Amino acid sequence: MDLKFKSTVDVTQVQLMGGDHMVVAAAKVATTGTDAMAFANVTSDDNFGLINYLMKHRHGTPFEHGAVTFFVHAPIFVWREWHRHRIGFSYNEESGRYKQLEPCFYLPDRERPMMKVDGWKPGRPKFVRCEDDRTFQVLCDGLKRSYTEAYRIYEENLFLNVDPGLARDCLPVGVYSGCWVTCNPRSLMAFLSLRTCEPEAAKFVSYPLWEIELAARACEKIFAEAYPLTYRAWQENGRVAP
Amino acid sequence: MDLKFKSTVDVTQVQLMGGDHMVVAAAKVATTGTDAMAFANVTSDDNFGLINYLMKHRHGTPFEHGAVTFFVHAPIFVWREWHRHRIGFSYNEESGRYKQLEPCFYLPDRERPMMKVDGWKPGRPKFVRCEDDRTFQVLCDGLKRSYTEAYRIYEENLFLNVDPGLARDCLPVGVYSGCWVTCNPRSLMAFLSLRTCEPEAAKFVSYPLWEIELAARACEKIFAEAYPLTYRAWQENGRVAP
Amino acid sequence: MDLKFKSTVDVTQVQLMGGDHMVVAAAKVATTGTDAMAFANVTSDDNFGLINYLMKHRHGTPFEHGAVTFFVHAPIFVWREWHRHRIGFSYNEESGRYKQLEPCFYLPDRERPMMKVDGWKPGRPKFVRCEDDRTFQVLCDGLKRSYTEAYRIYEENLFLNVDPGLARDCLPVGVYSGCWVTCNPRSLMAFLSLRTCEPEAAKFVSYPLWEIELAARACEKIFAEAYPLTYRAWQENGRVAP
Amino acid sequence: MDLKFKSTVDVTQVQLMGGDHMVVAAAKVATTGTDAMAFANVTSDDNFGLINYLMKHRHGTPFEHGAVTFFVHAPIFVWREWHRHRIGFSYNEESGRYKQLEPCFYLPDRERPMMKVDGWKPGRPKFVRCEDDRTFQVLCDGLKRSYTEAYRIYEENLFLNVDPGLARDCLPVGVYSGCWVTCNPRSLMAFLSLRTCEPEAAKFVSYPLWEIELAARACEKIFAEAYPLTYRAWQENGRVAP
Repeated sequence: MDLKFKSTVDVTQVQLMGGDHMVVAAAKVATTGTDAMAFANVTSDDNFGLINYLMKHRHGTPFEHGAVTFFVHAPIFVWREWHRHRIGFSYNEESGRYKQLEPCFYLPDRERPMMKVDGWKPGRPKFVRCEDDRTFQVLCDGLKRSYTEAYRIYEENLFLNVDPGLARDCLPVGVYSGCWVTCNPRSLMAFLSLRTCEPEAAKFVSYPLWEIELAARACEKIFAEAYPLTYRAWQENGRVAP
Repeated sequence: MDLKFKSTVDVTQVQLMGGDHMVVAAAKVATTGTDAMAFANVTSDDNFGLINYLMKHRHGTPFEHGAVTFFVHAPIFVWREWHRHRIGFSYNEESGRYKQLEPCFYLPDRERPMMKVDGWKPGRPKFVRCEDDRTFQVLCDGLKRSYTEAYRIYEENLFLNVDPGLARDCLPVGVYSGCWVTCNPRSLMAFLSLRTCEPEAAKFVSYPLWEIELAARACEKIFAEAYPLTYRAWQENGRVAP
Repeated sequence: MDLKFKSTVDVTQVQLMGGDHMVVAAAKVATTGTDAMAFANVTSDDNFGLINYLMKHRHGTPFEHGAVTFFVHAPIFVWREWHRHRIGFSYNEESGRYKQLEPCFYLPDRERPMMKVDGWKPGRPKFVRCEDDRTFQVLCDGLKRSYTEAYRIYEENLFLNVDPGLARDCLPVGVYSGCWVTCNPRSLMAFLSLRTCEPEAAKFVSYPLWEIELAARACEKIFAEAYPLTYRAWQENGRVAP
Repeated sequence: MDLKFKSTVDVTQVQLMGGDHMVVAAAKVATTGTDAMAFANVTSDDNFGLINYLMKHRHGTPFEHGAVTFFVHAPIFVWREWHRHRIGFSYNEESGRYKQLEPCFYLPDRERPMMKVDGWKPGRPKFVRCEDDRTFQVLCDGLKRSYTEAYRIYEENLFLNVDPGLARDCLPVGVYSGCWVTCNPRSLMAFLSLRTCEPEAAKFVSYPLWEIELAARACEKIFAEAYPLTYRAWQENGRVAP
């Protein structure tokens, strides 16, 4: 089968529940009791004040009464990190035990920062663009060659009619896999805080892997549209998940 | 302030996401990869077979890609139990620290089973209707008297201008409180399994408090309408949360 | 039965697992793989540097490989708040359905800050000591009277032989209840951050109810002894749960 | 670097908290209140009755007041499944971003069931031993060849001095990785129920991947020794996690 190479992570919004008004309605129950129900239908820019207050003081629970489902196509090494987000996240992923995985593999985009800079150290890795074309070419050629050989042997293994869950052991973590992801605004903010690098805006700066940041950036865009006031408050308060 | 007495638990559905089709779409990703996205829009009775299979074999995660938000008005002794459901449940409740709680209190309905039967024991409490009118009257009169006195002193305490979070310490667990509840179909099934008593239908029979069962029954009705095939499969497979 | 009044929250440490060395061992696996096992037995002050680094940059997971179990005796209004901590917390509590609750009730200590100060507002409640003896006396007398009447009617209800889970509806939230609490260092720090008020030390200041702060302070003391370097790092980094 | 091949999953118990007595003590608080503390130190075979009752009726929370930490060495395709257990599980794993992964790879043992049997279908995969030596040899040779080529290119990539988190994209899911795992008896039972195949003993039969069952079997052995009465009750009640 012909191999396909990709440099992107595809995030599609499939369904959505809630919005800024539900954050307000959820918070208002503390001070208004059953009257809070009335806020569940009121969309207003006036809501920003309360949302900003909740965000600043880290009152987190009002941000849980929403939900969003994504379908995501990403390399396994991205899933390895994403699946470590346990709370407020639900997943269902393509299975190498039940189907033949597609020959779709990750290759870095030419602009992907990848060369270590001085002062690089574990925990705070920083990289710059590779200016040497040849280095980039050697890297990509190597990955392609390895991917190709791995997929060829994978298909040979499948042809032996053995357990597909064993045949796939040679497949690289660079192979793509599809997965459903459902989360709520609060768990999404926790994810975005840890998986985007914003040295200027973030109170607690993270140094995520480039490729999961691609995914996070796509999610962030959807988040900003679905919950605009919540997004603005999160951004203005240092991108700290409440 | 005049006291109000209620015997019900009010559950209002406020928002909903997902449906039986999303259960199918979530499960299908294992065997079809990115093609699973197509199932996210297909509503069909044919979906029952797969949903039933997932339920029977306790494949639980496909039931997490949905959400429902309720507004619930219930006595504090019901919240004391409900809030113990930690996973897949989000709450925001009325606060005795930030507002005066309403003088609305729980009294049992005349039909509420309450007399111990022979063989009663902790863990499996069973009760029958109180056939003696006087016993029922004494109980209700006592509760009313106690509620009234407690609320009177509560208002006196508030009048002293002390911390409302201290003034309310005399309020009984029978006082009503409003709360937002958001959960997903899987966490909802776990709740329903534990908080309804179905000796004939349930593989694992629970003996919940009557009043939380009132709440659970109202949620079950909403669940059955929102996710009819999931509900049917859950019911036919012994009401075991997958 | 004679009523008992208490002003304390009793927290007893029952079992403990892990320590600062396990935080280090857990973190070291990222950079040393299987060699990390060796760190599981090394207690050293040198560990502070790494622990401090993890805390500062909010690498939270290494703080989950420990556990502590408390037995806690607290009023129900404290449990109402504590049980809202869902993640990394396990609870088993005394049941009003299965036993007669003891006539033990909460009364504020004379020093308990309780008078509203100017600028009081929901979300950031501040109180000062009640300097007026009479106000304090009226409050305590009212609570005692209400508690006494409620417990008397509770016993009458029990005497009717009705469901104990119904008989107790008049019991106030000021009644004490015993509960097992198990958590890990990370979830404990999240609890302490939200349930102690430290305007000078905390990056995100919380304004908890006085009585849950009593509980939190007792837990904090145990935490400081069990995981001294972790505690110091948490304190020095603004008491933000990683 | 020379490659190493393994067919095992290594599970080492590093620390442990609790025991059968804590299950009993946790449960007893419901019926005895503060007296339950006394049970925290009593080890007795008499405890089996209560533990069995809790297990049979799926009272799950008393099984959460314990903890165990494992250090596990397993292939990445095992971690891919294990890490999907979100609740009551904590993980810290070796990182391909911060260290060079060891050239240690998984090869199936000669006895590993791997040939599809008639009636094989997704969701309930069954396999038998491969009786054809040549098939087994072809599979192992292919895996070895692919692993070797992948690791060679991985080292070339590292030599280019690019981001190690990019260099490793060609590494196969058959490469080993070390990870700390902490869980409690309840979450461990949920894991064991889903990751072992016991058609005769289990009420809900699972069909896990062979290699994660290797891990689960090692955990089960440790579990049986640490919490013998709990283990026996779990086994006798159909291996259903309470």
